[in-house]
Amino acid sequence: MPTPTGFFWDMMAGRTPAPAAADTLGWKLREVDPDEGTIEVEFAATDRFTNPAGHVQGGFLAAMLDDTMGPALAATLGPGQFAPTLDLHVQFLRVAWPGTLIGKATVVRRGKQVCHLRGELVDNAGRVIATAVATAMVQRGERVRDRGTASAESLIG
Amino acid sequence: MPTPTGFFWDMMAGRTPAPAAADTLGWKLREVDPDEGTIEVEFAATDRFTNPAGHVQGGFLAAMLDDTMGPALAATLGPGQFAPTLDLHVQFLRVAWPGTLIGKATVVRRGKQVCHLRGELVDNAGRVIATAVATAMVQRGERVRDRGTASAESLIG
Repeated sequence: MPTPTGFFWDMMAGRTPAPAAADTLGWKLREVDPDEGTIEVEFAATDRFTNPAGHVQGGFLAAMLDDTMGPALAATLGPGQFAPTLDLHVQFLRVAWPGTLIGKATVVRRGKQVCHLRGELVDNAGRVIATAVATAMVQRGERVRDRGTASAESLIG
Repeated sequence: MPTPTGFFWDMMAGRTPAPAAADTLGWKLREVDPDEGTIEVEFAATDRFTNPAGHVQGGFLAAMLDDTMGPALAATLGPGQFAPTLDLHVQFLRVAWPGTLIGKATVVRRGKQVCHLRGELVDNAGRVIATAVATAMVQRGERVRDRGTASAESLIG
């Protein structure tokens, strides 16, 4: 695996702010092992994420799973590399209530470009709430914030 | 299809507030046809949903797709019925920038219990950003907000 010096580690070292999406989901790192390709994070599921039944909406669970598997891979990226998710498949096993949810993910295969990931969300009682698999693709791209530049569009195909 | 008198129509009539998740995603109904099983909604993707590249994080696009397909089905539900998503599969075709995103969904098959849904997210330029399929299951449940009751847990299997 590449030396872990990409934006994930810049963020962990406080050299770059956490992505807004992570912040919105109450993302916190618990542990990460880029050699093993594993990560454990936690999320603060708030009442802002709930459906009419008062449960955390499935889509927000999907967002948390994406933000677990993505960082597991991001921890293996080098400077200037990004790895957009191409495909995400989530199975919802149990309802989740607002509160702390724990995300665990593994890089199943770290290809040079194509990477396969799996993850799960667990509640405070240790029950698996949802599982997911994803495919991501390592690409080189500028961290652009202006819109519509070629380098930004190139981040996906 | 059942007479459209469930929580979706209560919400549309202002008899019950929009779910917090919908509110967080800036959800607005554009048009819905419960007989055809179709819906078109829009979302306000904010900077709060972005990844390190400044794009809307894939997980939030998944949340929007869930909140497009879910309401397409919800519009066909009767009083006391809910239809939790069991399975969600998203393919990310293009990057999305903060701004308005349009969600379109169709109830592909409205079974008595098991329902198959498909949806897509389109940007303001008409480009398809992401597509999804989902499986949901119609169940009868109280709109509980207290935690851990039997009726709440029964919403998923």
